[in-house]
Amino acid sequence: MIELTRREEFCAAHRLYNPAWSAERNEALYGKCANPHYHGHNYVVEVTLRAPVDPGTGMAYSLADLKAILRRQVVDALDHKNLNEDAAPFMKGRIPTAENIAISVWERLAEHLPPDLLHRVRLFENERNFVDYYGGE
Amino acid sequence: MIELTRREEFCAAHRLYNPAWSAERNEALYGKCANPHYHGHNYVVEVTLRAPVDPGTGMAYSLADLKAILRRQVVDALDHKNLNEDAAPFMKGRIPTAENIAISVWERLAEHLPPDLLHRVRLFENERNFVDYYGGE
Amino acid sequence: MIELTRREEFCAAHRLYNPAWSAERNEALYGKCANPHYHGHNYVVEVTLRAPVDPGTGMAYSLADLKAILRRQVVDALDHKNLNEDAAPFMKGRIPTAENIAISVWERLAEHLPPDLLHRVRLFENERNFVDYYGGE
Amino acid sequence: MIELTRREEFCAAHRLYNPAWSAERNEALYGKCANPHYHGHNYVVEVTLRAPVDPGTGMAYSLADLKAILRRQVVDALDHKNLNEDAAPFMKGRIPTAENIAISVWERLAEHLPPDLLHRVRLFENERNFVDYYGGE
Amino acid sequence: MIELTRREEFCAAHRLYNPAWSAERNEALYGKCANPHYHGHNYVVEVTLRAPVDPGTGMAYSLADLKAILRRQVVDALDHKNLNEDAAPFMKGRIPTAENIAISVWERLAEHLPPDLLHRVRLFENERNFVDYYGGE
Amino acid sequence: MIELTRREEFCAAHRLYNPAWSAERNEALYGKCANPHYHGHNYVVEVTLRAPVDPGTGMAYSLADLKAILRRQVVDALDHKNLNEDAAPFMKGRIPTAENIAISVWERLAEHLPPDLLHRVRLFENERNFVDYYGGE
Repeated sequence: MIELTRREEFCAAHRLYNPAWSAERNEALYGKCANPHYHGHNYVVEVTLRAPVDPGTGMAYSLADLKAILRRQVVDALDHKNLNEDAAPFMKGRIPTAENIAISVWERLAEHLPPDLLHRVRLFENERNFVDYYGGE
Repeated sequence: MIELTRREEFCAAHRLYNPAWSAERNEALYGKCANPHYHGHNYVVEVTLRAPVDPGTGMAYSLADLKAILRRQVVDALDHKNLNEDAAPFMKGRIPTAENIAISVWERLAEHLPPDLLHRVRLFENERNFVDYYGGE
Repeated sequence: MIELTRREEFCAAHRLYNPAWSAERNEALYGKCANPHYHGHNYVVEVTLRAPVDPGTGMAYSLADLKAILRRQVVDALDHKNLNEDAAPFMKGRIPTAENIAISVWERLAEHLPPDLLHRVRLFENERNFVDYYGGE
Repeated sequence: MIELTRREEFCAAHRLYNPAWSAERNEALYGKCANPHYHGHNYVVEVTLRAPVDPGTGMAYSLADLKAILRRQVVDALDHKNLNEDAAPFMKGRIPTAENIAISVWERLAEHLPPDLLHRVRLFENERNFVDYYGGE
Repeated sequence: MIELTRREEFCAAHRLYNPAWSAERNEALYGKCANPHYHGHNYVVEVTLRAPVDPGTGMAYSLADLKAILRRQVVDALDHKNLNEDAAPFMKGRIPTAENIAISVWERLAEHLPPDLLHRVRLFENERNFVDYYGGE
Repeated sequence: MIELTRREEFCAAHRLYNPAWSAERNEALYGKCANPHYHGHNYVVEVTLRAPVDPGTGMAYSLADLKAILRRQVVDALDHKNLNEDAAPFMKGRIPTAENIAISVWERLAEHLPPDLLHRVRLFENERNFVDYYGGE
């Protein structure tokens, strides 16, 4: 078994805010990330597939296909967008924390990849903060 | 003479849009950067001072002072902000392109540093695009 | 379950030396790392927590809290210090190898985090060498 | 248990091509990677060992030894080489995909390290693509 | 005046070899870089333009145009190519050292940009070696 | 004319302290950098030469020679050393600030390179602070 990883970037605005709560509670929890006019990041997404190596091709999966799916399904949906306003369907209404973005990227990719191939979605908000999601419970 | 550089980051939302023009003209020029709901970046700012080395201290300028001025005057003004909405005074009403952000950072720092010390402001929008401003004409 | 990682740096001096051994045996084992006057590194520490995502906040753990604990308990204890001389209590008398620093960081953080949250401590001595510690035996 | 990682680089030319297939089939699968005159990469290899920490030395394994083995067995065999032409014995005739290079590095290192020490070989073809191999089936 | 920089990558094979000399003289000068079967790199090219900021657009030059010219004229010509065999016209028959690649990139870009705009071509062969060319004598 | 740059690293301990001053004055100026037991860094040194390209070799200067001189004269003198204690002759008794290290590297290299070739010494103390020295007054 080999794990194969591809990295892409997207630039987006977001704001951490739970509309079910008061502005005060949001600010107490999210601090400056709750700023009403948004802020933004150069997000980095790393997608890892897990598969055996095909002895004929020497590949676990076509890197060209992975790149195309990742760009079409994730980068095109999120790049130069506002994650709260423009990407609400992609995010399924979730608050756009790093955790929820990773989960939403996983769900979108899982629809476009063969079953059981997706192993991990890593999402960097910046060089100091990132999350890993492995699917499941 | 020594050139002394300090690097800081800030996360901000922005949108490229000239309100004197039609939406069509803006979109033709700025493309997806004109998205009405903004997008954002992890900006990196590098500030370079130019000065002789003081033989007593071995320093061209106090790095602690440079860091404090840069954080107070630039990072605190721009981090987790919307450059169009929240940082309009800092930007002096300029469109928040990388070029104009660098010029505005220069002008702000020049007010808080001894004369003739500031040599260059470099601003990275991401790892692929950056601008350098040396003041002057 | 999500894994949430935060990265910080500290600059420190150290020396690899087991005082129970002769200088010759130390030098044979540790080479130039045994230099009596120390050398130093820009260490990078990455701390990973493992937790489910809270549906209300969209977060696995407060990144602001993790950052504060990591800075107060680790960076303040080790930054601009000598790991052999100044940080002996933190290191519990261990030789300050990358392995032992990671273990000591784990033990310190485990005292200040809710139980079962800490998943991994990664410590970079430089860009070419790093260790991972997952607790346990 | 600690995981100890060392990183090295090598510059090599390669071409993805299965000689059992027609040129058309190769090009359909490998695209521009099948270019007859080769292309190349600055490969990065990260080798991870897994071992308990020796209480006397504070180390899981000698980093100096790991570095020496990695340079002698891998870097010297592949650096400034053509992976198809010059490194055929190292590659055991496999097509030099990132997957197969990682497997060949694993097999070579396993011959020169104590048993059960090797945990992972990570191979970067560039900053956007990498594979992980953990041995076994 | 602002300096505006855009960064792109290309992967290529090359060999340092002057066909006017004996194999011995080539090997004495170029060492392992003269390997007959080539080696390769992930080259990074950074192109810097120098221009005043247009007050209407806030830009020194269209970054979208710079990116398009750089990709079409340089990356498409060199990526996944052999610089000695496939890119001989681009290189104008020069030996593909980092110095000569930078000069050839300058000459190609100068044909496709307005006059006096091009300021610098920086070419990285890897993270440890790079050259800067400013045109002229 | 081409500018040719080579990058190397060294790990060292240091302390900022002017022995002509009281401990209080040192601490007021240098803060935690005056810690009596030292701290340390992974320093990065980038050396730039400026020369025309030789049409026969395609090179401005032999990169192999530059690498050898830089390693022998700078890295061997400073790596795994204490810049105050072990490297006093190299530093010529100067306080080991980034500024003074860059000047001392320049002076040492100028003794071992052809005249007028050395263009710049850049020294990074970490990823956030660096200095440039161009020789001269």
